[in-house]
Amino acid sequence: MSVEALVPLLDYASVLVFALTGALVASRGQLDVVGFIFFATLTGIGGGTLRDLVLGRAPVFWVGRPELLLLTAGAAIVVFFTAHRLESRYRAILWLDAFALAVAVPAGVGVALETGVSPVVTVLMGVMTGTFGGLMRDVVGNEVPLVLKQGELYVTAAFGGAVAALLLLALGAGRGWALIGCAAVVLLLRAGGLGFGWRLPVYKARPPRM
Amino acid sequence: MSVEALVPLLDYASVLVFALTGALVASRGQLDVVGFIFFATLTGIGGGTLRDLVLGRAPVFWVGRPELLLLTAGAAIVVFFTAHRLESRYRAILWLDAFALAVAVPAGVGVALETGVSPVVTVLMGVMTGTFGGLMRDVVGNEVPLVLKQGELYVTAAFGGAVAALLLLALGAGRGWALIGCAAVVLLLRAGGLGFGWRLPVYKARPPRM
Amino acid sequence: MSVEALVPLLDYASVLVFALTGALVASRGQLDVVGFIFFATLTGIGGGTLRDLVLGRAPVFWVGRPELLLLTAGAAIVVFFTAHRLESRYRAILWLDAFALAVAVPAGVGVALETGVSPVVTVLMGVMTGTFGGLMRDVVGNEVPLVLKQGELYVTAAFGGAVAALLLLALGAGRGWALIGCAAVVLLLRAGGLGFGWRLPVYKARPPRM
Repeated sequence: MSVEALVPLLDYASVLVFALTGALVASRGQLDVVGFIFFATLTGIGGGTLRDLVLGRAPVFWVGRPELLLLTAGAAIVVFFTAHRLESRYRAILWLDAFALAVAVPAGVGVALETGVSPVVTVLMGVMTGTFGGLMRDVVGNEVPLVLKQGELYVTAAFGGAVAALLLLALGAGRGWALIGCAAVVLLLRAGGLGFGWRLPVYKARPPRM
Repeated sequence: MSVEALVPLLDYASVLVFALTGALVASRGQLDVVGFIFFATLTGIGGGTLRDLVLGRAPVFWVGRPELLLLTAGAAIVVFFTAHRLESRYRAILWLDAFALAVAVPAGVGVALETGVSPVVTVLMGVMTGTFGGLMRDVVGNEVPLVLKQGELYVTAAFGGAVAALLLLALGAGRGWALIGCAAVVLLLRAGGLGFGWRLPVYKARPPRM
Repeated sequence: MSVEALVPLLDYASVLVFALTGALVASRGQLDVVGFIFFATLTGIGGGTLRDLVLGRAPVFWVGRPELLLLTAGAAIVVFFTAHRLESRYRAILWLDAFALAVAVPAGVGVALETGVSPVVTVLMGVMTGTFGGLMRDVVGNEVPLVLKQGELYVTAAFGGAVAALLLLALGAGRGWALIGCAAVVLLLRAGGLGFGWRLPVYKARPPRM
């Protein structure tokens, strides 16, 4: 199998893993199984839906691929019956979200490259596809949005990965490798932020006149 | 009048009743009359707008039907001058929202059937059209989203109604009757949840190793 | 330079000033510089993006104008390094938001006029373009949405400005002057609300049976 053949799998992987995080948020809200499906679907398809809308790709990607919705529903049902086995569901959300981010950013960059938009817009598409599903999950589920966690390399990881993809392409890498590099950079930065406390300097309000 | 002729009325009814709930949320926030109009409009057209966007039906439904916007504004003004007569505005929101849900879900299913998407997507369109107006109202108005209420058959009612419509169609019912059946199932489930405490089992985190 | 030539500048001004308010919200959340860029971009382009989507103008306005995204990023970086000099960042957000509102409402009205939609939809486009960027900023950033501030002439200012533009056009003014009048009315009403306590009467729940 060539590297390029991996690319369509990014969408499936991203939808599935984000769906798992959405279902875990539903478990924190103690919802019923349809509530789990709701949050899994919102999180799984939210970012890609927004990406398709702003690029003018309507109907959006899952309208012609209903199996993606069965995937989110299936993930929700599995989580409904198994989440109580997890020691920390919040920790599981954070780490699964990191993996989802690492596949959703290249999925967004890949679609932007196909559409032929400018590099700046390509980076934004990567960041938006990666972060908006989780953002909707957190806003609707009354969780603190991960984008608000101080200096934890969340948006920064998505941004870094999208820029890395463009650099790899500029250096002559094929599209498949560029997207794999993108995923690797996102995962490395985000895992470094979560596991090892990697940080960028954050804004600190200083007292006036100092 | 044939049953099919009732179908276009679903949009008007759904926009109107959701607008009333939006205006009631504005009254809880003690806004001015333009604030009432803002929330009534956001809630009234929010779900259908999202449905049209993801299906690629742009411009969205109310762009060519400005009378819908006059309807939400009128509803807002009526609520502004009369809401103080209600004994419990929150209770009124819950019950009006149940009626709005019961007309918005078939409105979403009906549009999806016209567009000819797959059954899974049709169900999602029903749920999305039904729930997203209220969701935007609650998120913007700092209320706890109804989708987060534990096991109260909210998303579940929408889901059940959309599935019921597809079953009725599969059994040979006409489209008009299928949508009426959809509305009845949504209202029955939601009213049962609100009035009689009907519940689906909710997720309960058990202590580890038990 | 003719007045009409000012119109395309409205988009740039609105994106820039909203971006500044987004970056200031990021500073209140003590994010890193990429978090500043995220909030600046979300706020700067949010309202216009929604306007373009509902009007069916996809891809949305910034897809073909990546310099707008460089503008929001640049604004974010400037705020990251200078916001600590402000005495009250919240006060700065309120006033910058007032200026952004005063340019974004005519930007929305202008696009609606070009698209040739009905007057009611034109007013809604002005209000939506003006308020939704700030609304997304506040919802994602865990701030109380400005639309919820009691009677502070926020949505009301946007609404008044959009209506003023239509009145000026009906009175025979050119489009450029109508949009300038729109901006002036928005700014006047909002500044009056912020600085002089101008208010519309707000809804007050009276005790039952009085």
